[in-house]
Amino acid sequence: MSDLEKPQRDKKQFLEDLVRDLVASYQSESSMQHLDSIFLPNRQKTIEIIERLRKLVFPGFFDEQRITSENVSYHVGELLVQTHDLLYEQVHQAMCYGQNERGETDNECDQCCDVAMEATEAFMRKLPELREILADDVRATFDGDPASASTDENIFCYPGIDAIFTYRMAHELYKLNVPLLPRIMTEYAHNETGIDIHPGATIGRRFCIDHGTGIVIGETCDIGNNVKIYQGVTLGALSTKGGQDWKGMKRHPKIEDNVTIYGGAIILGGSTTIGESTTIGGAVFITQSIPSNTTVSMDNLDLKIKPKRERKNK
Amino acid sequence: MSDLEKPQRDKKQFLEDLVRDLVASYQSESSMQHLDSIFLPNRQKTIEIIERLRKLVFPGFFDEQRITSENVSYHVGELLVQTHDLLYEQVHQAMCYGQNERGETDNECDQCCDVAMEATEAFMRKLPELREILADDVRATFDGDPASASTDENIFCYPGIDAIFTYRMAHELYKLNVPLLPRIMTEYAHNETGIDIHPGATIGRRFCIDHGTGIVIGETCDIGNNVKIYQGVTLGALSTKGGQDWKGMKRHPKIEDNVTIYGGAIILGGSTTIGESTTIGGAVFITQSIPSNTTVSMDNLDLKIKPKRERKNK
Amino acid sequence: MSDLEKPQRDKKQFLEDLVRDLVASYQSESSMQHLDSIFLPNRQKTIEIIERLRKLVFPGFFDEQRITSENVSYHVGELLVQTHDLLYEQVHQAMCYGQNERGETDNECDQCCDVAMEATEAFMRKLPELREILADDVRATFDGDPASASTDENIFCYPGIDAIFTYRMAHELYKLNVPLLPRIMTEYAHNETGIDIHPGATIGRRFCIDHGTGIVIGETCDIGNNVKIYQGVTLGALSTKGGQDWKGMKRHPKIEDNVTIYGGAIILGGSTTIGESTTIGGAVFITQSIPSNTTVSMDNLDLKIKPKRERKNK
Amino acid sequence: MSDLEKPQRDKKQFLEDLVRDLVASYQSESSMQHLDSIFLPNRQKTIEIIERLRKLVFPGFFDEQRITSENVSYHVGELLVQTHDLLYEQVHQAMCYGQNERGETDNECDQCCDVAMEATEAFMRKLPELREILADDVRATFDGDPASASTDENIFCYPGIDAIFTYRMAHELYKLNVPLLPRIMTEYAHNETGIDIHPGATIGRRFCIDHGTGIVIGETCDIGNNVKIYQGVTLGALSTKGGQDWKGMKRHPKIEDNVTIYGGAIILGGSTTIGESTTIGGAVFITQSIPSNTTVSMDNLDLKIKPKRERKNK
Amino acid sequence: MSDLEKPQRDKKQFLEDLVRDLVASYQSESSMQHLDSIFLPNRQKTIEIIERLRKLVFPGFFDEQRITSENVSYHVGELLVQTHDLLYEQVHQAMCYGQNERGETDNECDQCCDVAMEATEAFMRKLPELREILADDVRATFDGDPASASTDENIFCYPGIDAIFTYRMAHELYKLNVPLLPRIMTEYAHNETGIDIHPGATIGRRFCIDHGTGIVIGETCDIGNNVKIYQGVTLGALSTKGGQDWKGMKRHPKIEDNVTIYGGAIILGGSTTIGESTTIGGAVFITQSIPSNTTVSMDNLDLKIKPKRERKNK
Amino acid sequence: MSDLEKPQRDKKQFLEDLVRDLVASYQSESSMQHLDSIFLPNRQKTIEIIERLRKLVFPGFFDEQRITSENVSYHVGELLVQTHDLLYEQVHQAMCYGQNERGETDNECDQCCDVAMEATEAFMRKLPELREILADDVRATFDGDPASASTDENIFCYPGIDAIFTYRMAHELYKLNVPLLPRIMTEYAHNETGIDIHPGATIGRRFCIDHGTGIVIGETCDIGNNVKIYQGVTLGALSTKGGQDWKGMKRHPKIEDNVTIYGGAIILGGSTTIGESTTIGGAVFITQSIPSNTTVSMDNLDLKIKPKRERKNK
Repeated sequence: MSDLEKPQRDKKQFLEDLVRDLVASYQSESSMQHLDSIFLPNRQKTIEIIERLRKLVFPGFFDEQRITSENVSYHVGELLVQTHDLLYEQVHQAMCYGQNERGETDNECDQCCDVAMEATEAFMRKLPELREILADDVRATFDGDPASASTDENIFCYPGIDAIFTYRMAHELYKLNVPLLPRIMTEYAHNETGIDIHPGATIGRRFCIDHGTGIVIGETCDIGNNVKIYQGVTLGALSTKGGQDWKGMKRHPKIEDNVTIYGGAIILGGSTTIGESTTIGGAVFITQSIPSNTTVSMDNLDLKIKPKRERKNK
Repeated sequence: MSDLEKPQRDKKQFLEDLVRDLVASYQSESSMQHLDSIFLPNRQKTIEIIERLRKLVFPGFFDEQRITSENVSYHVGELLVQTHDLLYEQVHQAMCYGQNERGETDNECDQCCDVAMEATEAFMRKLPELREILADDVRATFDGDPASASTDENIFCYPGIDAIFTYRMAHELYKLNVPLLPRIMTEYAHNETGIDIHPGATIGRRFCIDHGTGIVIGETCDIGNNVKIYQGVTLGALSTKGGQDWKGMKRHPKIEDNVTIYGGAIILGGSTTIGESTTIGGAVFITQSIPSNTTVSMDNLDLKIKPKRERKNK
Repeated sequence: MSDLEKPQRDKKQFLEDLVRDLVASYQSESSMQHLDSIFLPNRQKTIEIIERLRKLVFPGFFDEQRITSENVSYHVGELLVQTHDLLYEQVHQAMCYGQNERGETDNECDQCCDVAMEATEAFMRKLPELREILADDVRATFDGDPASASTDENIFCYPGIDAIFTYRMAHELYKLNVPLLPRIMTEYAHNETGIDIHPGATIGRRFCIDHGTGIVIGETCDIGNNVKIYQGVTLGALSTKGGQDWKGMKRHPKIEDNVTIYGGAIILGGSTTIGESTTIGGAVFITQSIPSNTTVSMDNLDLKIKPKRERKNK
Repeated sequence: MSDLEKPQRDKKQFLEDLVRDLVASYQSESSMQHLDSIFLPNRQKTIEIIERLRKLVFPGFFDEQRITSENVSYHVGELLVQTHDLLYEQVHQAMCYGQNERGETDNECDQCCDVAMEATEAFMRKLPELREILADDVRATFDGDPASASTDENIFCYPGIDAIFTYRMAHELYKLNVPLLPRIMTEYAHNETGIDIHPGATIGRRFCIDHGTGIVIGETCDIGNNVKIYQGVTLGALSTKGGQDWKGMKRHPKIEDNVTIYGGAIILGGSTTIGESTTIGGAVFITQSIPSNTTVSMDNLDLKIKPKRERKNK
Repeated sequence: MSDLEKPQRDKKQFLEDLVRDLVASYQSESSMQHLDSIFLPNRQKTIEIIERLRKLVFPGFFDEQRITSENVSYHVGELLVQTHDLLYEQVHQAMCYGQNERGETDNECDQCCDVAMEATEAFMRKLPELREILADDVRATFDGDPASASTDENIFCYPGIDAIFTYRMAHELYKLNVPLLPRIMTEYAHNETGIDIHPGATIGRRFCIDHGTGIVIGETCDIGNNVKIYQGVTLGALSTKGGQDWKGMKRHPKIEDNVTIYGGAIILGGSTTIGESTTIGGAVFITQSIPSNTTVSMDNLDLKIKPKRERKNK
Repeated sequence: MSDLEKPQRDKKQFLEDLVRDLVASYQSESSMQHLDSIFLPNRQKTIEIIERLRKLVFPGFFDEQRITSENVSYHVGELLVQTHDLLYEQVHQAMCYGQNERGETDNECDQCCDVAMEATEAFMRKLPELREILADDVRATFDGDPASASTDENIFCYPGIDAIFTYRMAHELYKLNVPLLPRIMTEYAHNETGIDIHPGATIGRRFCIDHGTGIVIGETCDIGNNVKIYQGVTLGALSTKGGQDWKGMKRHPKIEDNVTIYGGAIILGGSTTIGESTTIGGAVFITQSIPSNTTVSMDNLDLKIKPKRERKNK
């Protein structure tokens, strides 16, 4: 073997070994691959659906062309058809995937198509109603924030509106028992905004989020009307020691109407209820129910203010 | 009617109904649409402006081609012209939008052009000065963080620098009374970094943000020189009950020179001042003014450490 | 000079002045530009590497085409070659950059190539092992979260998995002394997820992050096996007054095996150790070591619940 | 001056000299540049208009999504609006450009808008009629070519249909006195197909082109119904010595109904008429009128067939 | 009705009328639309198949990454799988389309899948053999053209090689009775090169095209080995009066081995045979058979050379 | 082996066989692959160079942004740098490729860099002069064509100008002995316009092409000033029997000043000279020299005009 050939042969060997080892690793860690499967929905297309729904719900804000009263019907019609078809495709994939996960046979795949079409159309039919609900959310966000210059600004660039919009879409699909898609959608909003709302949570009207980064709203939360929450608020589970054993149980708090929760407050537990019209102060830590019409802050929370000692280093 | 035709006719009806309902919903919720308007600035183009400004401010870091001393003038000249034109277009849109929002008549639209051109050129002229200010920010960030390997690393991948850069650009447009654009810019940075700085805030030189996610700096904050803040810090309003009634009032704290605020600290209120050279400890909750040259932590903050009880389940 | 010519001449002057001033500003602030340099790695390509590695590690999840047992070897082979070449290019840039930063002469550039190739191949060879470690992380994430429907959902849309995946890749390059790239990678994940893990941190197996936004894990953290942490947790330095003087010292806590840390807890200091099997409660602030097998919460942390006073305004 | 600096200074000088020389050359050759002008239409957008018109005229052939009877109205409506707006923009640019070329003052620019809008709407209104005419062209193409498998194949991939379609669109704009755009359109088709039809030519119904490459149809041609021509046919001017002096005169032949012209035939001259139902043979060269109902070939056109001589070389 | 509303109402009416008329026109001209159909193959994807086949046949010429002996198997494997899947999809569409055109019922659609898969695999299996044939074409092109610098130049930029490559691919699919696709492919090459070879033509080995523009080779041509043809050559039908009645009959000439045909020659008719080793001169017009081993030129073809008369005009 | 596994195993086998056969075919046909080579220039980038040169030569015609006198220097500077770098890269590749083809050793690769840089700079320096020459071509094209509305139209959409522009660029590189690139450039123009000018041809000033499709101008053509040629004209070699043996000899005609050649004329042979101010008629076939100041047409070229016989079929 000449010297010239040797390194190439070595590189070829290196490559072949690595390919073989990786493919072997795919076979041994079956939870880490999705080979031979046709059912997984497509994350990128699911995000595209959300972006098209955003244009349908807020016409004229995110479009590249100008929409006028004269042409809006054509625009909406075309967009609806595209969104409907994209959504049907992904709902169908998700339904087949769900069936497969539950170990059901392939024979009922025709049924998948029907169920997916029903879910898709039921969702689409809800859009006008969802717009009404979102209009209230936008109004509440504007009314509650002196820094907001107009509802246009809210729609255009408030992460709170972005997260609520995506949650309301995803929650509707969640109620229609569509697997995976709702979570992909809310995690997309989580990525964009830092606001993590589980699609299973129940949230009333005129919901308002300010700043938002670091908010967590768990799967079994139940939130009333006119609720306002700030950045860093957690509405979470008390403990997750049980892991999957807790599945399906109520693990997250109930927040009644007209409650305000300031930044960094942590409210935990499935039997915790924050009563109507109560205000939770910033950074409060709560694992018990709170009566209505109260304000809550930390007791004994005094500041320790000391003069600075002379720093030696630096 | 044959069986074959029926489903199609149904689908057509479904589509027509939905289009009609959505269009009707657009008409009834006028705050949720922007039909027939020509004035809304374009979010995507505004983001493009920020990206081009980033290349102008940090030449050689984010360019795809190699920039050398020989060609830098041409590169900068071309980039400046493009940025200027893009910015003028969006500032003009924003100015017209603002005029329209204030109910002023269209007749003064020529004036819009002049005002927009003046604002654009005033902004562009500030760029060399803004670079100087940012150079101080970068230096302060490097000096204050032992984990940072070089100022290149800071510029290249620190979300703090990204957020401060965007704030400094947006603040300049804010001072020039350009509507909407500054907020679109800072919310873009908020999305990318989790750091939410209102473009109206006033921030001194050598500002340093570490880690950053979850930081909120409100509209009427006033921050001195050499201030350093960590992730999760809120410089917010004490209460927002008043909502839009509070508009224009000072609602956020004043932070004097040389203050350091550790992670998770919450400082609220328009009459709250943190005195010069004071250090605020992590997770401290403050709604009152703090004297200079002190360190602040929570009093009575003892840990309750208990041996674990035998867990029965799991 | 005619009136027509005047404004144009002015605009030309404006442009020339601005270009001259900006170029002058580049020369005076040398830390803010990278002109005449060939060594800086490319941020966009580094992100592309991470995305390709994601496809190699989780085949079938993020691909646009269907991967089957029949074609997986070709797919992996092709992807490996592309990833290898892209990575080598960026590692080489980074190595040259590092050499340049250390003031070493150009003469040893050949050595750069060899070192870069060795690092690239060493990294690639680790991929099957890294997949095993990540499979444990995925499994732990699923087991610990009742809201998670399947490991597919975890891989598909959990920011925790995204951040851990990126950290594990970046940490491997960090151990191989590749400059800049590891930090670009983890800051990319930080941007996407709000989870900030320094590539220098040491993290054991079966690591689980829930929700995640606002988590900070510092450079010299040392985390054991089976550790679970929630949103907003900081594992940070006690003080960074020393700035660059602290470089290389242990500044961040040690977390032993089987520890759980709930949301918003802040644990600081290089000599702080959280003992084995201990549970840290939400929002706890710790700057001291904690024994094994304990649960920690804040003492004296009572709520102050007051009935609401009649609000006058609003 | 050190050796290191010299080449760079040289390169800088080289660059500056070249930029200065090129800019000087722009100033001296004013016909070769379009600086300071706002009026030139955009070639790329004009091509985009043609592509959208193709989708409007042949729905379902070139669309990426599936068009059905249910959604076709929305699709057409949306596409019409987009095409209308794009076309108006380019027609307006072209109208202003034409006005400027004719040396007319800017004051009448408002009139430009009106004229452009009228032309655009007049064009759009013609579309259904143009579809009828094109349907006849397609049918004639199919009927006349045994190699064509279906009218679908003709529409899908016959360069003849492509060129006729583009001509018919461009001719309509030509009749509306829109400058530049019609020629940009037909030259685009010329590029794609090798068929060069001047938009000013007059062409009757059921026009059929076979193969097509190399066909030239001049500006003042007048072609009747049911005419069929083959590749390489020229319908041109007898001499162009006069150049621009000939502008506006009839320089190209008249072809009456039911004429067939075989491949490579050249027919020249503004007073040349090919009478009704006549057939022109391949490669015939004609500069005179030809009576109706005749067949024309070259006289004295015998082949000289010689046995091959022994070749010495090769 | 106010003046302000009137134009808008008019525009709306204009739009609605036009949409209605166009949709009506779709319904009346059924040959001009493809609504409600799922079967039409996709032109863009068919072109993509040709481009991928080009990379498979000429590895290393048109790839963006570097292909080496070490990685070529992975590269080819991945590309083969992608090409196979794309081709199967389009062949399937084309097969269904063909079945539909023939009026066959949908019930046999399963059969479509099988037939499409067989055709796809039969085609793919032919690729190594097709490469051999193309290698001969490339060699013949190089040998015959003193202006060609290397076979690399031939492969890289000779339109003749481009057209022959595409013909050879399309002809193989034609032999497998795949509808539409072969013609889409050769018309794509026709667009690119001006060389129009019908996929049904039969062409022997070592085929060489020089310059090429304007060449037409008809459906029933039969061309032997070692044939060379120049730009503007037509191998066509004598008359197409019969139109579709001629379908399936031999309408184009037979060219035997070792024939050379110079530029602009026109050879017509299904019973015309050019005998072995004969040379046809430029611009010769032939409608009869020619014996072997002869050279053919036009007889009586003398030039008329006249001194120029004094030009008066110009 | 179960039935389920069988088809998959078969498909895997099919794939593996095909990959193996194709790779084997790569090894046996070495002229048909470019594996393991680093030297081949990139066709796509070469086309990009031509497009950038077009923008440099005709500023304001093909740019997406508006170029004004104020910013033209920056624009040109930036574009020049990009074009220079792209061109250097491809010239360097081509030089290395050429060296490799000539069997020269790798040791001289440094020399390649110098030679490539010299060629690149020599080319760039020629741009202002090439603009002057092209300005004459544009003017001649406008003057000679009554159908041309303005020089803008010529530049914007005349394939003749496109082909001449590309030829003039390519010819300059040809004179600098750059391999491959010139031919890639002219074949790109050939594709776009159907005009095939070999980069080695010599062409004087004020060259004018009308319509253009099907024009062939061979490698050793020598064309004077003020020459005008029409579509389908061939300036070719008399015979190419000798193939590669003819390399480097004069094989194509000489065309003296002020000659006009009408459509379809074929002029062949290296010793053929068309004398000054002569006019060659359409479709004339010439293989001998022609004196100056004459007009040439075919003698004995009478038309045979016969009344049509009654057609029976059709």
